[in-house]
Amino acid sequence: MWNKTELSQLLQIKYPIIQAPMAGGPTTLQLVSEVSNSGGLGMIGAGYFSADQMRTVIKEVHQRTKLPFGVNLFVVEEEAISESDLHKSFDALEPIRKALKIPNEVPDVKASLTIERHVEVIIEEGVSVCSFTFGIPPQSIITRLKENNIIVIGTATTVEEAIAVENAGMDAVVAQGSEAGGHRGSFLGESKGGLIGTMALVPQIVDHVKIPVIASGGIMDARGFAAATMLGAEGVQMGTVFLTTVESGAHDLHKKAIMDATEENTVITKSFSGKAARGIENDFIRLMNDNACIAPYPIQNTLTKSIRKEAANQGNEDYMSLWAGQGTRLNKEMTVKELFEELVSEIDKKLK
Amino acid sequence: MWNKTELSQLLQIKYPIIQAPMAGGPTTLQLVSEVSNSGGLGMIGAGYFSADQMRTVIKEVHQRTKLPFGVNLFVVEEEAISESDLHKSFDALEPIRKALKIPNEVPDVKASLTIERHVEVIIEEGVSVCSFTFGIPPQSIITRLKENNIIVIGTATTVEEAIAVENAGMDAVVAQGSEAGGHRGSFLGESKGGLIGTMALVPQIVDHVKIPVIASGGIMDARGFAAATMLGAEGVQMGTVFLTTVESGAHDLHKKAIMDATEENTVITKSFSGKAARGIENDFIRLMNDNACIAPYPIQNTLTKSIRKEAANQGNEDYMSLWAGQGTRLNKEMTVKELFEELVSEIDKKLK
Repeated sequence: MWNKTELSQLLQIKYPIIQAPMAGGPTTLQLVSEVSNSGGLGMIGAGYFSADQMRTVIKEVHQRTKLPFGVNLFVVEEEAISESDLHKSFDALEPIRKALKIPNEVPDVKASLTIERHVEVIIEEGVSVCSFTFGIPPQSIITRLKENNIIVIGTATTVEEAIAVENAGMDAVVAQGSEAGGHRGSFLGESKGGLIGTMALVPQIVDHVKIPVIASGGIMDARGFAAATMLGAEGVQMGTVFLTTVESGAHDLHKKAIMDATEENTVITKSFSGKAARGIENDFIRLMNDNACIAPYPIQNTLTKSIRKEAANQGNEDYMSLWAGQGTRLNKEMTVKELFEELVSEIDKKLK
Repeated sequence: MWNKTELSQLLQIKYPIIQAPMAGGPTTLQLVSEVSNSGGLGMIGAGYFSADQMRTVIKEVHQRTKLPFGVNLFVVEEEAISESDLHKSFDALEPIRKALKIPNEVPDVKASLTIERHVEVIIEEGVSVCSFTFGIPPQSIITRLKENNIIVIGTATTVEEAIAVENAGMDAVVAQGSEAGGHRGSFLGESKGGLIGTMALVPQIVDHVKIPVIASGGIMDARGFAAATMLGAEGVQMGTVFLTTVESGAHDLHKKAIMDATEENTVITKSFSGKAARGIENDFIRLMNDNACIAPYPIQNTLTKSIRKEAANQGNEDYMSLWAGQGTRLNKEMTVKELFEELVSEIDKKLK
């Protein structure tokens, strides 16, 4: 059954199982390369990398695998913030800085959001796949990637977004259901929520686009993979399940929090980055959700950076971002290779 | 494949497809009996019926089908409300009463929430199945039903609730994912939300109970049925898909709203009844969600009754409760018989 899907042929991978590009630490060289070496598609979460940082990582992953892997980039537009709003958002974080003994200095919130340079590096380094989150990149970027035979994947949380991804000429679309951990990929009408469950989202997207649909959100094992294919998906993207693998770069406390979490412990919050994301509820989220002063992305992300870093250093999970989806009871601690062997063997049994 | 599931044997039905018990109008005699006559399990939504009203409906359904059907009851505890809070909730609805020209009279909000009498009627009338929403009935009720060979089904929105259903001695459990339309069945820690997507919820419940699990939430066609079985469910409960059938008692404007809705148009609201439910967002929900004065169930339900009734009479969908799940792009207008024929034939193709 494994050679049949249009998606695995498109991506030239054995199993249409994509490791979600979790930016900010979890997607180590080992994780990405082991996923690809196991027959899936490893993804570098490059959303927070400069083009040069990204190049270094790509080179190192290339040394660890001869098989295809991908890179994910964020598509974000600059949001203006007034000096007074910036200070309100900064001040709202003061109790947390105090608890962690971090100096009260407003960081430089100017950020470069352009990805043209990244795209050139992706082309130069011969990466196989480039996926995008938070929006549709400029047409020139999609054209440039496709001219260089790089497969382009978009992310959608609604049917309308999936249609936009297809209309932009991308090759496949990740349908991100509400169960998914980490950042919501929503880019049209985010205020309405776009919190559609995977079971409802996937078939409705499948009915409205011709490109392959990759299901994500709550998919944790062979049951989820098989269910996704029944819904019409050509493959799956799994994130949370990889966070507790040996190769994952998630902090030990993050891994432990996931292993201890039930399906009821996660919430959607904008408190860490300014964009909606699902994570395990902790003091940081509770404190900030009671507070309206959250700056837009990426400013909030910059404002909370020292807090997240210092909380990790101090081993204080109360103030870390503990991204996770709603399927954490199904997380296991094992190597990527073991995970793939179990997954593929169980899928074979279910779909034989 | 159809005779294999423990659930269809337990319920003595051909196809393990349960029509969700949508109280308040949609589950007409025709809908319930046609579902059973088509090989599924029709369910009378008796949550708002007196025992006598319910007996009349059961007798009439019995005349229309010789096959098993069920009744659903609400398990609700009395919530106290002060006179001043009651008037605040009543006053919050005044602009809507004014728009609909309804006299400003506070209704009698005393309600009988006991279901002992209903249970005796269910036994006397020889109903096959009794399901419960919003909680676990007293042990005496479960024992009484089981002594009379009536199959007892509970509703859960979390793993913990499913375990409670099993521990209470019920025979099966509906796992209600966040996609589901209408009332959330949550009864433990409702404040935390219990909004777990079906894809994540079902396998985690399956892993924690031995009784058959019935998947619900976002299941609209053969793809959803097949996906649910892959997740480990023994059957499905479908509600929204039946709302637009010819036999459904949903108001024509409700049917039209569903046919026009996308997956982005529903929200969770307590505004109509005091309990969280998913419906198509309209003026009523927008107006009331901006307002904190929502009385607890069933008081809010009583307070809004005249509004819902008069809005329906006037053909004004702005103030009706337009319950629906997140899969409305998959709704069709057809008879129950046609729906079952299409569903079963497609499932046969998918799971052959």
